[in-house]
Amino acid sequence: MVKLMDQAIKKKIVTIGGGTGNFTVLSGLKKYDIDISAIVNMADDGGSTGVLRHELGVLPSGDIRQCLVALSEAPEVLRDLFLYRFGIGGLAGHNFGNIFLGALEKVTNRFEDAVLVAGKILNIKGKVIPVTVEPMVLLAEYENGKTLKGQSKIANYKKHKIKKVVLENEVHTSYEAIQAILESDLVVLTPGDLYTSLIPNFLSFGMTEALRRTKAKIVYVVNLMTKRAETHAFGAYNFVEEVEKYLGVNVIDYVLVNTASPSEEIADLYKKENEHFVSPDLDKIGNTRYKIITGDLISQIVFEKNPADKLKRSILRHDSDKLARALLNLVLL
Amino acid sequence: MVKLMDQAIKKKIVTIGGGTGNFTVLSGLKKYDIDISAIVNMADDGGSTGVLRHELGVLPSGDIRQCLVALSEAPEVLRDLFLYRFGIGGLAGHNFGNIFLGALEKVTNRFEDAVLVAGKILNIKGKVIPVTVEPMVLLAEYENGKTLKGQSKIANYKKHKIKKVVLENEVHTSYEAIQAILESDLVVLTPGDLYTSLIPNFLSFGMTEALRRTKAKIVYVVNLMTKRAETHAFGAYNFVEEVEKYLGVNVIDYVLVNTASPSEEIADLYKKENEHFVSPDLDKIGNTRYKIITGDLISQIVFEKNPADKLKRSILRHDSDKLARALLNLVLL
Repeated sequence: MVKLMDQAIKKKIVTIGGGTGNFTVLSGLKKYDIDISAIVNMADDGGSTGVLRHELGVLPSGDIRQCLVALSEAPEVLRDLFLYRFGIGGLAGHNFGNIFLGALEKVTNRFEDAVLVAGKILNIKGKVIPVTVEPMVLLAEYENGKTLKGQSKIANYKKHKIKKVVLENEVHTSYEAIQAILESDLVVLTPGDLYTSLIPNFLSFGMTEALRRTKAKIVYVVNLMTKRAETHAFGAYNFVEEVEKYLGVNVIDYVLVNTASPSEEIADLYKKENEHFVSPDLDKIGNTRYKIITGDLISQIVFEKNPADKLKRSILRHDSDKLARALLNLVLL
Repeated sequence: MVKLMDQAIKKKIVTIGGGTGNFTVLSGLKKYDIDISAIVNMADDGGSTGVLRHELGVLPSGDIRQCLVALSEAPEVLRDLFLYRFGIGGLAGHNFGNIFLGALEKVTNRFEDAVLVAGKILNIKGKVIPVTVEPMVLLAEYENGKTLKGQSKIANYKKHKIKKVVLENEVHTSYEAIQAILESDLVVLTPGDLYTSLIPNFLSFGMTEALRRTKAKIVYVVNLMTKRAETHAFGAYNFVEEVEKYLGVNVIDYVLVNTASPSEEIADLYKKENEHFVSPDLDKIGNTRYKIITGDLISQIVFEKNPADKLKRSILRHDSDKLARALLNLVLL
């Protein structure tokens, strides 16, 4: 645990996003003596999460599970257990942590209680807060007029550019999420799929108002790579502009952008998927709305695909420790 | 916790059996300040346990799970979670605790470690010890010459009388089980299906020798009801005689037999299945091999069948507290 010398009371940091981006940011932040809350998108309906959501009528647990593991201070075996994915038999494709949260929701009758109990077992530092405990169904409108329903369908569609995302039904942001934002010192909008991981959080009723009202500084961590259909050909400026369409302008205080280029080998792998390095083009456009913070934020570890995992995982990631240091600089300013 | 006044060091009690009998005995004993170890049959291959055993190649967890829950001092929600059985979807029929132990065995690569970790999460009092960590395959020979393979097939077969059970392959009793027996003050042979829950333990190499060598008193708790094919028309004497075929004579020190009759209503329910109250006929036969202890050991709670549970469950059970008091009398003699 790294003690921060110059703070009288613990700084409060809230992260907002899906599973992957939250995981990266939380893994770095948890090493510091701060108060962490992770607010998690509840629109997920793919993979193991989607099957359980459909079959058992439980809330989506995949992103929650990743945040719980990121904040866990339990022995490694328990973290491994929560991330374990069955490779064979009738349970193939199911992630143990999802089954755990699903069964616990059935037993407790409340998803929030399931998350709390799982958090105790995993001995998490801080809190994991579902953005809402009402089922979120994401809808996307594409530039050619097409519409698609469901987070996983939208995330895997590659043909047309998304115009906007909305929710099928209004859902209410959980009280805990609103409180965490209002009481925090720094809110981190984490990287990840823009329309399917980050923005769904903003669609929950009450969320944008909380972000506008809080005295906390708000920092947006821009993605490293573009994604077809979602953010094709985006530079950093486009990412921020898109987020501001949902949040309004003058809400984001800082934008954190990586400026180190990935290796040619990794860039080539992405190019095959028609995905590219996000150019740190913010400096080129004069703006006074937010401060731009740049630096090398890339992880040197190349992430491999898990063969038991049918989902495609990106192999270039932010470095958790570099991110954490950059974020703590903001809260200690 | 009930403190026992007249003991300088904690008494050590070992129970041996399957899931149900162990559960009943352990639930009562855990309320006392004693050192408890539960040794558990590993021949189970039915239901959720059997599916996981077959599909994932893990060891059978159903009986272990019941013992873990019996000894758990964790909040009720965790005990409920471990007993939770999925009623719908692709997980239907699976018991959460079995999935938990299966995934944990995959993650740790050692069933013993999975049981230890689960025991920590469930905050168990004492130890749960698999009789062996090698796969046990039970074979039954019937009086008409027929043979059957597999614990669940044997347990559900109702047509002919079992002559004897053996194992397909030799397995070794775990070191922990041997040690627990050798160091204990009292060994309890718990009630339950005679040939498919209790006796398989005795077939594991080393077990009968440990039971013959230990200085511990050995008490056998006779079943309340007969079971077709397994113990049809058995009186208490037949039960003991059968156990002695596997253990040898002069190994059992005490036989604990219920003498209270069940209500007519319950007796009628069993009669429909051609199952009957076990007559406490031990007194009729003069023997000096073991002491007979009799009393009202019946639970006043009528156990209902769980609709999500396809297995038939008996509705007449021993009373955990009455059993515990009778057993503690033996260890404090």
